[in-house]
Amino acid sequence: MDPKNSRFSTQISHLALDIGGTLIKLVYFSPNGDNCEGGSIVVGNGCSVVQGRLCFAKFETRKIDDCLDFIRFNILQHSGVQHTNGTARDKLSVKATGGGAFKFADLFKEKLGIVFDKEDEMHSLVCGVNFLLKTVPREAFTYLDGQKEFVQIDHNDLYPYLLVNIGSGVSMIKVDGDGKYERISGTSLGGGTFLGLGKLLTNCKSFDELLELSHQGNNRVIDMLVGDIYGGTDYSKIGLSSTAIASSFGKAISDGKELEDYQPEDVARSLLRMISNNIGQIAYLNALRFGLKRIFFGGFFIRGLEYTMDTISVAVHFWSRGEAKAMFLRHEGFLGALGAFTSYKDQSHSTELKPHHHTVERAVLKCSDDDSFRHTPVTANVNDGEAIECSINLV
Amino acid sequence: MDPKNSRFSTQISHLALDIGGTLIKLVYFSPNGDNCEGGSIVVGNGCSVVQGRLCFAKFETRKIDDCLDFIRFNILQHSGVQHTNGTARDKLSVKATGGGAFKFADLFKEKLGIVFDKEDEMHSLVCGVNFLLKTVPREAFTYLDGQKEFVQIDHNDLYPYLLVNIGSGVSMIKVDGDGKYERISGTSLGGGTFLGLGKLLTNCKSFDELLELSHQGNNRVIDMLVGDIYGGTDYSKIGLSSTAIASSFGKAISDGKELEDYQPEDVARSLLRMISNNIGQIAYLNALRFGLKRIFFGGFFIRGLEYTMDTISVAVHFWSRGEAKAMFLRHEGFLGALGAFTSYKDQSHSTELKPHHHTVERAVLKCSDDDSFRHTPVTANVNDGEAIECSINLV
Repeated sequence: MDPKNSRFSTQISHLALDIGGTLIKLVYFSPNGDNCEGGSIVVGNGCSVVQGRLCFAKFETRKIDDCLDFIRFNILQHSGVQHTNGTARDKLSVKATGGGAFKFADLFKEKLGIVFDKEDEMHSLVCGVNFLLKTVPREAFTYLDGQKEFVQIDHNDLYPYLLVNIGSGVSMIKVDGDGKYERISGTSLGGGTFLGLGKLLTNCKSFDELLELSHQGNNRVIDMLVGDIYGGTDYSKIGLSSTAIASSFGKAISDGKELEDYQPEDVARSLLRMISNNIGQIAYLNALRFGLKRIFFGGFFIRGLEYTMDTISVAVHFWSRGEAKAMFLRHEGFLGALGAFTSYKDQSHSTELKPHHHTVERAVLKCSDDDSFRHTPVTANVNDGEAIECSINLV
Repeated sequence: MDPKNSRFSTQISHLALDIGGTLIKLVYFSPNGDNCEGGSIVVGNGCSVVQGRLCFAKFETRKIDDCLDFIRFNILQHSGVQHTNGTARDKLSVKATGGGAFKFADLFKEKLGIVFDKEDEMHSLVCGVNFLLKTVPREAFTYLDGQKEFVQIDHNDLYPYLLVNIGSGVSMIKVDGDGKYERISGTSLGGGTFLGLGKLLTNCKSFDELLELSHQGNNRVIDMLVGDIYGGTDYSKIGLSSTAIASSFGKAISDGKELEDYQPEDVARSLLRMISNNIGQIAYLNALRFGLKRIFFGGFFIRGLEYTMDTISVAVHFWSRGEAKAMFLRHEGFLGALGAFTSYKDQSHSTELKPHHHTVERAVLKCSDDDSFRHTPVTANVNDGEAIECSINLV
């Protein structure tokens, strides 16, 4: 292999993609200094240890051109890959997972000269979670009564657990060990339902906008509560308080109001509550089947939003009577992409990826809707907040 | 007690109500002939055996005045109860269940002189189902692959079963015997969610209109299928076909369309599919917990609609891998009201209610939106189709 191509190939191998129905998630390694060699130290066994960071980015799948441009200008070009008429001269192999790894394979090949090395979606999710739980401190936390509490997971007592990945749809995976897992359930009421119905009901343009709306709303305006049916009283005999939701969106039946008469904030809130609660309940029922005490929730639906985590936690707590625990992950949105990233076995850095810092702050890279960044390559300090400081071994 | 009042009291006791968040359900006994005595035969023990029919009617809870008028003109007046300025002269005790038995107690007392003798909602549901399964032939049926099949239930092998009552919200009750039951689960995604969201999304005015719409729709227009994510292929490794729904309403994310751009038929179809499937899944998971093989679905959500029954049946079959069976009930909408009706213990006809005929056809009384029937008392041939021919003993 031409050494120049080899260098590019090594460089580009530090990118992995997870292309879902709604979002494309990217994980890429950014060495400290201007290029790969900048921060590298040659160690005894002939490997270079490169200091740098794992960086994260996301794009809406429907705006896949933005993602292509981002990779072209900020990863390929930044790594020194030459372009002829906007496409890479050589075919580069990149780890990719999610349905889009199949659906968009031709597009990436044509536009960027990237050939996808496909990784199974469930496998990548599990690898991603195991990687995070085993190597990144302060990754997992519980959220109850407004309190976020980091949980130190004993590596010898990690399995089994239930992984609930909330993407467009929801997958529930029982994980028994490294590479030992089974998709046991799922539901079609996921992030895609929240955003899809949310767009139809509120004219929101994005997930972030819809979440922001939901922050300010009150679900009791549209949800039918037990008290609404029982004239303000509890149905105490079966333990349902008057404020429990009897029927999501049930008040819209009788109000004689039309969609315009409701505040979009309240609609968004009811929707978020409905979907979070439903996922929490189905997750609990599946955890119960297999006696799983720990449920990790991942995927880009949650985004660290307190109300969502609270609803899921309360649902799991309520239905399990405190037996099962909902846990969340700081890098929840990038599980599949991280898993695909750790699968670069041929360059043996999968097991050699060593996160350094104990505190990693979260701040997702926001891609603006305007086109400016396409022509203004984003430099190394994008999404610094969520990055994981680490070193990798290059053979 | 004045014998005249006593006669009224006996007569009105043949009415029971189940007042839910969305619908009011009525069950009343209509003797053959013009009045109570018309079809009665005095038997040896001093009781009168009265031949007649159990009749059923429903009203939207938000149109409770229609219900009051129906009771005033078609039951009270028809039974010979006198009115003074539109209200009954004497207080009459009537069995009532559902949250509205609490919420609307004062209204019924004030407007009709009716005092509710309240029955617990779950208890009434269970009594209603047990009554139907034990006494009405061809009541329960399965629905799979477009085939309706009546199931003869062995009375000695009836318990345990799971009762899933789909009202505005959904209650799931494990039934172990007469009066032996526990509400083990539920979901807020029920009939109220279907109608509430349906109204907001399609401007439908009624449940029937929304169901009618859903008949003609195609859920694939809005639902994101596995194939939409995987570029048309299955995700065969985990047994998900390309036509499986990955994300309900997920396509609305990326289409760049607004609500007006979708056909209301397709929206209604996706909604019905989402809710039916979710109920089927949660029901199955609960049946699994307790090893229940039979799941009876009741409540006014299903209405014998083939698509709904098919979705629920397929969900139960899919998730349980054929182990559990979804069953439906011909009088599904009146379980609570029937249960309340059978609880008239003081007149001892609860155990003496004897259905006669093997075939009872279904045809729910439709209350028109115009006011004409208020002033045109509906006579004995209303909702003949769904009526159960029976006799009751009067002490």
